[in-house]
Formats: sequence, C-alpha cells, structure tokens
Amino acid sequence: MYSFKNDYSEGAHPRILNSLMESNFEQVEGYGEDGYTQQAVELLKQRIGRNDIDIHLLSGGTQTNLTAISAFLRPHEAVISANTGHILVHETGAIEATGHKVISIEVTNGKLNDSHIKAALDSHTDEHMVKPKLVYISNPTEIGSIYNKAELEQISRFCKENNLYLFMDGARLGSALCSEESNLDLSDLATLVDAFYIGGTKNGALMGEALVICRDSLKEDFRFYMKQKGALLAKGRLLGIQFLELFRDNLYFDLAKHANKMAALLRAEIGKAGFKFLVYSPSNQLFPIFPDSLITELHKNYSFYVWSKVDADHSAVRLVTSWSTKEDQVLAFIEDMKNALKQRHKWLH
Amino acid sequence: MYSFKNDYSEGAHPRILNSLMESNFEQVEGYGEDGYTQQAVELLKQRIGRNDIDIHLLSGGTQTNLTAISAFLRPHEAVISANTGHILVHETGAIEATGHKVISIEVTNGKLNDSHIKAALDSHTDEHMVKPKLVYISNPTEIGSIYNKAELEQISRFCKENNLYLFMDGARLGSALCSEESNLDLSDLATLVDAFYIGGTKNGALMGEALVICRDSLKEDFRFYMKQKGALLAKGRLLGIQFLELFRDNLYFDLAKHANKMAALLRAEIGKAGFKFLVYSPSNQLFPIFPDSLITELHKNYSFYVWSKVDADHSAVRLVTSWSTKEDQVLAFIEDMKNALKQRHKWLH
Amino acid sequence: MYSFKNDYSEGAHPRILNSLMESNFEQVEGYGEDGYTQQAVELLKQRIGRNDIDIHLLSGGTQTNLTAISAFLRPHEAVISANTGHILVHETGAIEATGHKVISIEVTNGKLNDSHIKAALDSHTDEHMVKPKLVYISNPTEIGSIYNKAELEQISRFCKENNLYLFMDGARLGSALCSEESNLDLSDLATLVDAFYIGGTKNGALMGEALVICRDSLKEDFRFYMKQKGALLAKGRLLGIQFLELFRDNLYFDLAKHANKMAALLRAEIGKAGFKFLVYSPSNQLFPIFPDSLITELHKNYSFYVWSKVDADHSAVRLVTSWSTKEDQVLAFIEDMKNALKQRHKWLH
Amino acid sequence: MYSFKNDYSEGAHPRILNSLMESNFEQVEGYGEDGYTQQAVELLKQRIGRNDIDIHLLSGGTQTNLTAISAFLRPHEAVISANTGHILVHETGAIEATGHKVISIEVTNGKLNDSHIKAALDSHTDEHMVKPKLVYISNPTEIGSIYNKAELEQISRFCKENNLYLFMDGARLGSALCSEESNLDLSDLATLVDAFYIGGTKNGALMGEALVICRDSLKEDFRFYMKQKGALLAKGRLLGIQFLELFRDNLYFDLAKHANKMAALLRAEIGKAGFKFLVYSPSNQLFPIFPDSLITELHKNYSFYVWSKVDADHSAVRLVTSWSTKEDQVLAFIEDMKNALKQRHKWLH
Repeated sequence: MYSFKNDYSEGAHPRILNSLMESNFEQVEGYGEDGYTQQAVELLKQRIGRNDIDIHLLSGGTQTNLTAISAFLRPHEAVISANTGHILVHETGAIEATGHKVISIEVTNGKLNDSHIKAALDSHTDEHMVKPKLVYISNPTEIGSIYNKAELEQISRFCKENNLYLFMDGARLGSALCSEESNLDLSDLATLVDAFYIGGTKNGALMGEALVICRDSLKEDFRFYMKQKGALLAKGRLLGIQFLELFRDNLYFDLAKHANKMAALLRAEIGKAGFKFLVYSPSNQLFPIFPDSLITELHKNYSFYVWSKVDADHSAVRLVTSWSTKEDQVLAFIEDMKNALKQRHKWLH
Repeated sequence: MYSFKNDYSEGAHPRILNSLMESNFEQVEGYGEDGYTQQAVELLKQRIGRNDIDIHLLSGGTQTNLTAISAFLRPHEAVISANTGHILVHETGAIEATGHKVISIEVTNGKLNDSHIKAALDSHTDEHMVKPKLVYISNPTEIGSIYNKAELEQISRFCKENNLYLFMDGARLGSALCSEESNLDLSDLATLVDAFYIGGTKNGALMGEALVICRDSLKEDFRFYMKQKGALLAKGRLLGIQFLELFRDNLYFDLAKHANKMAALLRAEIGKAGFKFLVYSPSNQLFPIFPDSLITELHKNYSFYVWSKVDADHSAVRLVTSWSTKEDQVLAFIEDMKNALKQRHKWLH
Repeated sequence: MYSFKNDYSEGAHPRILNSLMESNFEQVEGYGEDGYTQQAVELLKQRIGRNDIDIHLLSGGTQTNLTAISAFLRPHEAVISANTGHILVHETGAIEATGHKVISIEVTNGKLNDSHIKAALDSHTDEHMVKPKLVYISNPTEIGSIYNKAELEQISRFCKENNLYLFMDGARLGSALCSEESNLDLSDLATLVDAFYIGGTKNGALMGEALVICRDSLKEDFRFYMKQKGALLAKGRLLGIQFLELFRDNLYFDLAKHANKMAALLRAEIGKAGFKFLVYSPSNQLFPIFPDSLITELHKNYSFYVWSKVDADHSAVRLVTSWSTKEDQVLAFIEDMKNALKQRHKWLH
Repeated sequence: MYSFKNDYSEGAHPRILNSLMESNFEQVEGYGEDGYTQQAVELLKQRIGRNDIDIHLLSGGTQTNLTAISAFLRPHEAVISANTGHILVHETGAIEATGHKVISIEVTNGKLNDSHIKAALDSHTDEHMVKPKLVYISNPTEIGSIYNKAELEQISRFCKENNLYLFMDGARLGSALCSEESNLDLSDLATLVDAFYIGGTKNGALMGEALVICRDSLKEDFRFYMKQKGALLAKGRLLGIQFLELFRDNLYFDLAKHANKMAALLRAEIGKAGFKFLVYSPSNQLFPIFPDSLITELHKNYSFYVWSKVDADHSAVRLVTSWSTKEDQVLAFIEDMKNALKQRHKWLH
C-alpha cells in the first residue's frame, strides 16, 4: 500500500536529521534565541533579498495562521477568505477562537481577486457589521491552483488602496513557487504581501513554518504573541536547524520541484487516459475525476482521499505528491490505472 | 563556557534521534493518528497502570497548559495558582488570553495546600466574582520543591470535596518523581489528580508533553481543542516516536535520575562550602545564595541565571541540571567555586 | 416626516413610564435581586405555564445573544444560522468575539428547516472542523417570515435527535406570536426550544429582553455570565418593572397586535395597488418592491430603508410598524402612495 | 428599614423621568444617533471644555470597563490595578474574558502612585510575560478615597513617560469631584488621563456612563466595539436624554454634593462618638469600625453591608449615601447609634 494521501506522511529529509544529529550536544539558548535560528533568519532574509523584514519560526500552519492573524487585527476586524480557505473550514474555528470573524467568499478555483474583495467591503458598511481588514489567500490554494504575478499584483494594489492587510498562507509555498506556471519568487512576495509564510512541514521538514512579516506596523512585539499562543518552542533550535538546512543551498526548492515533477507525471498520464480534473492544479495536488470502479481498484494498492462525489458513478479523488514521493511508485500507479482501464474495456466488450 | 541555565540547552537523547532516523521513510497517518503515537499512548497507559485515561501528545508546556485549561473550564471559571505558578507569570497571559482569570495565592515554597485553596474559595462568594474551579500545581514547582504523597492526597481530597479540578503541570515531572524524597509514582498521579502531563522537552526529548486526562468529564472532544489551538502537529509521529523511545524501557526515569544526581552533587558541595539556599529543592533546580563576587568569578566559565537579589552583597542564582549535564563539568564548577573561595579567604587574610 | 424605519423610534408605552414613576423612590436590592424583577419572572413563568424554567432580564438583543450563546457552548462548538441571521451579519461579530464560529446556511425565506441543519452536520465530520452544536433561529425572522408549529416541531425533533441546542431569537417575538398566521404560543416555545427570548425593546419597553432557559443543563451559573458580559444592570428594577407592566395583563400582546394590524393595512393596500413583496412576511416588517420613482416621492414625507436593488428601476424597501405606529399615518402613507401612482399614470398618458 | 447599602437603591431623579415622559413619542434615530444623544455629547464637551474628545454613552460600569479596555489593548497587553480595583475582583473576570491579564498591586488606601506602577513595569521584562500597558484607577476608589490633582499629575506624567494608557473608572466620579477635599474638575481629567467615564447610574440616572476618550489613538472605530459587546442600545435616546438632563444645569453636581453632605454628617457624628474608620474616605462611602453588638442593634432599622471583620468584637461596615438619601434618615441613624451607645454604657455600669 503506497500513500498519495498527503505530503506529510514521511519524516524529514535526511540532511535535516543529520543536521540535528551533528548539532545535538551543543548548548544553545532557548526559545529561538539560539545561533541556528538567528542564522536561519539571516539566510532567509538573503534569499528573500530584504533586510527590512521580520522572520519568526513556528511549528505548524494552524498555529502560524492563528498567531499571526490574531496579532495583526483589532477585535472588530475580520478576515476575508475564499470559501475553500484552510482557516475557514479545516482549522476548527481557530481564528474565531481568537475573536475574529472569517468572511467566506464563494469562488470556483480557490482564488480570490479584487472584485471578490470589493464585494466583501461593499457589503460591510457600518459599525453593526465587522470591519473586513485582512485578506487571506493560500498559494497554492487548498485545491492546488496557484496565483501568478499579475493576479497577485492586482490583489496587492487593491489591498493597499483600501488599507487592507494581505496575508499569504504558504503551507505548500515551495510547490507554488516551483510550479512551471509560476512567475513569482520569494522577493516578489515580500513586495506584494504584508505577511506570508514559507511552509516547511509539507516540504521536507519535521515541522516548521517561517513567517515573514513585511509591513512595519505588524512587526511589533510579535514574540509576545508567539509565547501567548504556545508557539515559542523551548528548543527553538529545532526549527532554526531545519530552515538553515533547507535554505543553505537549494534544498527547499529542489524538494518542491521533485514533488511537482511527480505530480506532473501523474497529471499527464491521467489526462492521456482521458480523465478530467475537478480543478486545474499546476502544483503538487491533483483532483482527477475517476469512475468509482477504478477508485475501488486503485484503493487496493494505494491510499488517497476521495474528495467529492461528482455524479452517480464518478468521484474526484485527491492525489498528493511530495519531496519523498518515489518515482517508481508513481509509475506503478499509472501502470495499475492503465491496466484497470484495459480490464474494464475488455470486460465491456 | 558551560551552561547551567536550563534543562533544554541541548538537543535530544541520541536514542530519540536514532529512532527518528530509523522510522523516517515509513509512511504513516498524520495528526497523531499514526501507529507510533498509538503505541506510545498504550505504553504510557501501561506505565501508569490505567486503561480508563486519555493521553494526548502536545509540543510544549505553555501549549499544553492553555489547551487543557481552556478546554476544561466554562467561561466564568477561574484557576487557582501559587504566586510562583508558571501560568501566572511566565506564559504571557496565555490562560487569560483564553478568557480565564488566574487567582494568585501568596506562598513561600511554591506549593499550595488545602488551606490556601479554601481561602480562595472563601473570598469568591457570588456571581460578581469569578468562580474558582481548577487548581493548578506544578511538580516540581517552579522553584524546585516537590509534593509528597500526603500533601497531594490532602489537596486531592479537598478538591474532590469542593468539586474542583486538580491539574498538575509536569514540565519537569521526571525530576520530581525520581527525587530521593518523592514517594509518588505515575499511578498515584492518575488517582489523585484530574489531569497532569509528563514533560518530555526538559527531560531528553526534542519537544513533547504527554497530557494525561483522568477525569471522564474532561475527556470529550479534546482533539478538537488541540486542533483549534494549533497543537495538532501534521507529523504527529514526531511526538509519538519520542515518547515511545522514552518509555520503551526506563530511559525517561534514567535521564531524570541523572539530572537529579548532578543536582545532588552540586547541592551537597555548595552546602558544605557554607552557602544557604533560597528554597529547599530536592529536584534538578537549585537556588544557592552566593556572594556577588563569587557569582562574577563563576560567570567567567559558567552561564546561569541570577535569580534575585538577597542583600547588598548576595544574590540567589539558579543552577539547573539535566539529562545531558556532564559530571566533569559539575565537578569543575565545584572546584572553581572552592578555588574562588580559597582565593578570597587568602586575600582577606 | 413620519418614520417607518423601525420599531424602536419612540420611547416606551406610557404605562411603563408611569410604573417607573410610581416605584421610583422605593429602595430595592440591586442587580436584579429586587422584588419587581422577581415578580416579573414569576409572572412570566405563569404566562408560559412552566415552573421548571429559568428567566433572566437583559438589556438588548445583541447582549442577550452573545451572553446566552457563549454561556451555552464549549470552545470548539459552533452555531448554525440562516444567512439572514442577525448574529451572522448585524452584530459586529459579537458571537465570534466570544470565540465561536457561526456557520451560514443559504436560505431563501429567512427560515431554517431540518434538512438545512442536516447538511451542516454532514459537512462537519471530524476534529479539523468546528462542531455544530447550537441552532439559531429568529421568530419572526429578520425578513419578517414566521415559523408555524409544524415547522418548529420538525426542527425541534431534529435537534433533540442530534443533540443540538435550539435557540430562538425573539427580538420581535410578540409580532410573530400575534401574527394571524401563527399557531404558536409561549408554552409551545418552552416545550420546543432550549432557550428563547421575549423581546421588549421592539414592543413597547424602553429596553429589555426576557431570556427563557428551558433546558436544565444550560441554566447553571447564568448570572455569572451576565455579570461577566456587563449584562447585569445595577438598577435591575428597570427591567423588572417593565416586564411586570407588559405582562400584568395582555399589554405585551395588545401592542404586538397593533403593530401587526398596522402592517396588515399596509400589506393589503400595497398588494391591491399591484406591488409584489420581496418575501412573504405576516409580521410587522414588510418588504414591498416599489418603482424607484415612487420611493423618491414617498421619501418626501416618510422615512424608511431602501432594502435592496431589485432591477434597474425597482427596489425593495422595508416598512416597519410598531406598538406606537399611528393609524392615520398609515392611512396617509397609503393615500400618498395611491396619489403618486395616479400622478404617474396620468403623466404616462 | 432604611438602606445605606448602596447608591443605586432608588430609581432616577424625577427630572430625568419627566424628561423621558416629555420626549416619549418623538420619533428619533436608533443606536445613539438621535438628537438627544448628540446634544448630550455636545453639552458634555462644553462642560469638559474640550472639542477634541470623543464621548460615548454606555449602560453600566462593567460594560464600560470591558468595552473600553478591550478596545484599547492589543492581545498581549495587560492592565495594572490596585488590589481593590473593581475590575480585579467584582466584575467576574470581565477583563480576562476579553483576553487580558489584570496585574494586581497591593496598596493600603485603594490608590496607585507612580512607584507602584514602576514596580509592575520592572517585574515585566520580556516576551515571556504580559506587557503592562493600561493603568486602571478609580476615583473615588472602591473604598472611598480620592485622588488629588498632584497625585493624578504624578501618575499621568509617569504614564506618558512610559507610554502607558491611564484610564479612570468614574462610576462615582460626581462624589469624587464634589468632595470638599478634591481640587480636580472635569477639564483636569481630560488633560491628565487618556479615558475616563462620568458615572450616571450611581448619581441619579436610571443607568448610564459617559465614556470620554481623550487620546486620539484610542478613538477609532469605538462604536464597532460597543456594538460587538452588546453596548449599543437600540433606544440610545434613553442614555442621551438622561445625560442631557443631568448636565443641562448643575444637577449632576448638585446630586453628588447632596450625597457627600449626607456622608459628611454621618462621618462627623460617627467620629464624635469615638469610632475609627477603616480608611479615610472623603466621598459618599464610609467604612466605620463598630462593635458587633452595635451593628446588630443598627441592623434592626437600617440595612448596610458588613465589610470586614476587624477583631473578635469589631467589624468595619460600609455606609453609602446618595443623591436620594434622606437627611432625616441620616439623623435618625445617628440618633439610634447614640442611643445604642448610651444603653450599652448604662448596662456596662
């Protein structure tokens, strides 16, 4: 049984474990004030090409979202999110638990644009309603689509004009930036959004997200919020060492490229076999629509999620590749898919 | 420069890193539903000797405190804590941030007893005040003292009689239970308190606290709270593997015993040298009162915190030992202390 | 300029002011422990026909909603509401500010039914999502529609079967219960819902809502929540005296009937004049669709809200009647409407 | 039985009820956007002598404290309060329920000074602790003492130098400002504190506190916070009309002076009779220390709170006078006290 369920099924890239081993007995300061974390932060600033940004390392996506968003907003301010937004549905009301409404915008491809945001502003007119203040986008989105530079510039401009914060959830940011269809890089993000994070957990780390705060007014006292939300690890080195290893060279991007390459293989062959996709996703998540009989067949050797029922006999499934996905398993999956189709064809005739 | 600043200066016990290595490429379920976590939980239940308890693995102490306490209490209910309680001072208002008052009780040795708790109940009489509901104790306390069985039984009985929850912060629980003066074991805790946690971060793990919920009414839906507070790691295996390794045999207790042994060495020699302690602490934290000149001398080769000014020329310092404290460094510290005293003596004559 | 903007444009029914006058210099206990409040509560229990309910008097609708809902729910539990729900849009995120998500259900007539609720349950499947726990309905709804007994029984049964709380916002409850199309009375509500409130502010009181808690498990310590949310008035008598006066005889219902009668007059004549309504509303709020030119004409002598644009030349407006609406003003409005139409007709020919 | 229990035992000053009567059928805007509220706000600005302040009318003290303080602070910021502070003990954790710690400072007379505040700052040194940001003082304090101008200037200067907000709870502000020992007036407050409120509930209104926000940065969006906390009354006129009446002439101050005069009568005679006071209080609350036997005797005809046990045979009681306290009842109380003492004297001989 091989799993395409998600991109956090395995541990960490071996270089990360080695790095933890090598540094293990060095005595360092706690709570992220160690040299490794400081080096990681400096290195990230270089890779982003900016010195006027603040970077903090946190453990996971939900923790980063809730800590940052609650730090940025005043009590009556709300978040605007696509209806597929992770914070909207899959974080057990973590944002609301900090006191803030998340306004849902119905979209088809997981992506917000300026007219969506304008509609939310237009419908919130006075003090009897929350005040929309932070636009939450994910790149890639929760359904695998990505933002290109023009799209992000449009949103960014609109947010600046309307005094809104723009926040990018980058849990799978590596896959977005390394997509063949992306024309964005880290330095673009620092220019276009107010805060974003570089997801480590889903791209080769044991855990870890690097939150980048670009807007000056959002930087103050951020470590207080981290501590208050339980996000300041005593052994902060654990995060520092990992990001140092991931960005020491191109490891972070190489891992993301591998995930994307594996997805591309699947995408191409599934397409060739005549299947459609629920949504176009040029990143490491695919949502092909399969006959239910094929799903049953494939589930014998592969685990993956059935995403949604499409019609009486078909469902969309989710296939996720990662830094650790094995090419031979991808090829085997494709082979098994083809064989199942042949069998079916034979049986039909 | 050798550090006695705290018990989280190094990484993890090598067996833990090895175990992470060995399991690294196995594909497992996310969010703590993997086999390692399940095994760790089963193992912990065996070690505690109880099947009717729930166990959850979280990343750190503040996260565990805030997730558990906010899950257990209704909005108007408050926590009773000794004035030295970690949640009261050193967690940036994490409990208050979830909506609950922490009532401070002035004590001398870090420990609560039933009359302290009674006083808090007696002064909260009606709906114009919060309703004290959860008693927070730490074992060892934040200043190194420990509870014995009779003391814990007294508090436990009082809490039961008054319908209060008893919660034990066990960030350094290993050191408390392995203290030569302790007559408590894990199974006693499960009988006497409603919830407690077994701290891994400060006893050899990279991170991790095992929260044990003993009272039935507090168990429901706990994973919802973990997710909502950002405490459900995608790679939950990281916690499962560590606790599995720590409790597979006696590693957890062996590590704590080593820390205590190193502290005992320091305690004995510091006492012999004629120094007093700010508080009696039979665990891995010591608070000797040194002349400021000696502190200056020792700070040349050792890092440790100056805890509080005692008089014009003396201060209490905090020395912390751990699973990874090296005996030769302890001996060197003692030697340096003695030499400094000799020098001083000579110079005085 | 006569106002049909809302049902809180005037002060209070004169009997209420008289009653405040007469009792003014009597010394009574504070915070709702006075004899007037106790009498009002007893009287309300009689009118509802139940002794096993708890009743609390609060100042306004938002305050009642946020105090009750946050008292009833545990942190991970969420509210299900129609997309028109007052708490969802018009209370500045008051519920979210207490930590709870409000799940929006798209409906056409402001009313929830069991299949709506089932859909919300079905889409919230595990601990990565909030747990839907309280169903919020308004009667009448925010757009004037009302629940009949069969509808409420259906929802009530579904909630009981699925262990959900059913909460009814009764800001305009008088108008709903006194609607000619209603077959519900106060005693039905106490049987069918877990908590509801009897709105005074919009039916003749200066301010005041009587919250009725029917489910035993929701009663405990409620005065603590009121105090914590700033909902316990020092001069609680102010609320007690008003409800005592409203329910001493049939005043409360008489006032609601007058409001409904005035609405019926408008509804009938507007209908006769050939206009449609945005929604069918047999209570004291009407949403006729008028030509924009007619709205301009009517706005010369009457104030009322333009509710929504319907097409290029038509808008729905909101007309609200109340206990204090003057019949001659209603007749004048109808007359002016007819005249405007005649003028227009003439002009068109 | 005459009550000296508190200053909210009666209804409102008759002029207020008359004013409600006279305006009753006028149709006005809701939610504090009516002309009465606007006039009241303008009038208050004149009386304070400042145009650059924002004024909002709320219902009660706890509501005002929690709405203002939670609006002013960011999540990690805390309040500094004397240990007698109303928010600390008698508001059911209302401030903590909005997420903020209240730091208690032990004082003897209910009053903070700059060295108290400095001590709180000095003990909160880094991101592991909350950040003290708002200083909460009450004038008069909860035990009747008052701040003079020099004391308030000292605190104000310290707060400005340390970038702290200074907030004054003025639930009984009339009594403080009208005390013979006060040298402060409303315009001083607007200069020296960042926000304060003028309490109506305890000085002749049915309910109502006028919150004055002096610091520009605290003004923004305040009506959003009021709505979110349930503090925006639909019939906001109810508050506007009352403050308009209280400040149309000197009514507010006349009422406070009467309360103070009645307290002065009691204070003088109790002193002459040889009794001491728990605390020196030149406002409308007195805390004389009486023999328990005298308390029993006086309780036959007067209700008042026993405040605290002083020794085996003596207790401090609280006597509160108000705008509505009757002079003949005060004289009767004094007479009864004297008679009881004579009886006791006789009996002793």
